[in-house]
Amino acid sequence: MQLLSQCYLFKGLSESQLLRLSEITKEVQIQKGRFFMKEGQQAEELFVLKEGAIELLTKVETGFDLPIAIFRNPGDCTGTSSLVEPYIYSLNSRCVEDSRMIVITKTALKKLMQEDHELGCTVMRNLAQQMLDRLKETRQELKVHFKTIFRSTQQ
Amino acid sequence: MQLLSQCYLFKGLSESQLLRLSEITKEVQIQKGRFFMKEGQQAEELFVLKEGAIELLTKVETGFDLPIAIFRNPGDCTGTSSLVEPYIYSLNSRCVEDSRMIVITKTALKKLMQEDHELGCTVMRNLAQQMLDRLKETRQELKVHFKTIFRSTQQ
Repeated sequence: MQLLSQCYLFKGLSESQLLRLSEITKEVQIQKGRFFMKEGQQAEELFVLKEGAIELLTKVETGFDLPIAIFRNPGDCTGTSSLVEPYIYSLNSRCVEDSRMIVITKTALKKLMQEDHELGCTVMRNLAQQMLDRLKETRQELKVHFKTIFRSTQQ
Repeated sequence: MQLLSQCYLFKGLSESQLLRLSEITKEVQIQKGRFFMKEGQQAEELFVLKEGAIELLTKVETGFDLPIAIFRNPGDCTGTSSLVEPYIYSLNSRCVEDSRMIVITKTALKKLMQEDHELGCTVMRNLAQQMLDRLKETRQELKVHFKTIFRSTQQ
């Protein structure tokens, strides 16, 4: 339960909400090097890191995967595509160390959010905020590229 | 009310929820050329387009604004930063035609979502989904740049 409260998605939930959430989780061990989430596949599960490290990547073309992030902190999570339609993973994730993760299925979380709209509202607000932050970061990276191009045309 | 139901944020709301929402709106007219949202400023209002056209831009550097999108359809909206912390607009928006817009203040919408968590959950889910879509599009653009760089190193 303490681990769940460290995940940005579950910030602001009450003790009893976290307890109900903890009841729908299971723990899994994943070996170093294994991909557990594939870009383009059905997003059925959300993963919260307990121990270890995971890397998120996106395929640019054969032989070139662009690293998006490395997560090492307990409570870091991946697989949030399992929370929103069309429920398709948008990234590849692999363990870069032997890892332990808490897994929550799409179906169980959806049911919990339908039963408790306050919980649903909090989780979705947290998710929207995180998505907006990532969108800003990604736009920032894009700006760097455009800035380079713009400057080269000014010379 | 019909206009509000066309906005992606409010998809899935019931008739009575849309009615309550319509009670906290006001309508404004904005002249062609006017900026009504500035990047970096406090996000106090959400705007839903009724008539006209708006352009979203982000400043890359002085003299170079990168266009992000043009909205022309009734129900298109901007200013969603007013729905999530830190409540700071992440883009500039200006009217490219004389426009009419429906305005909803951050404070009134927040209150409505607290009073009706089901409504809050729906709005936040719709927002998160939209943010994820925009994030994917932006990553896609970034990939194009990386692909160009990658290919030039392979030659």
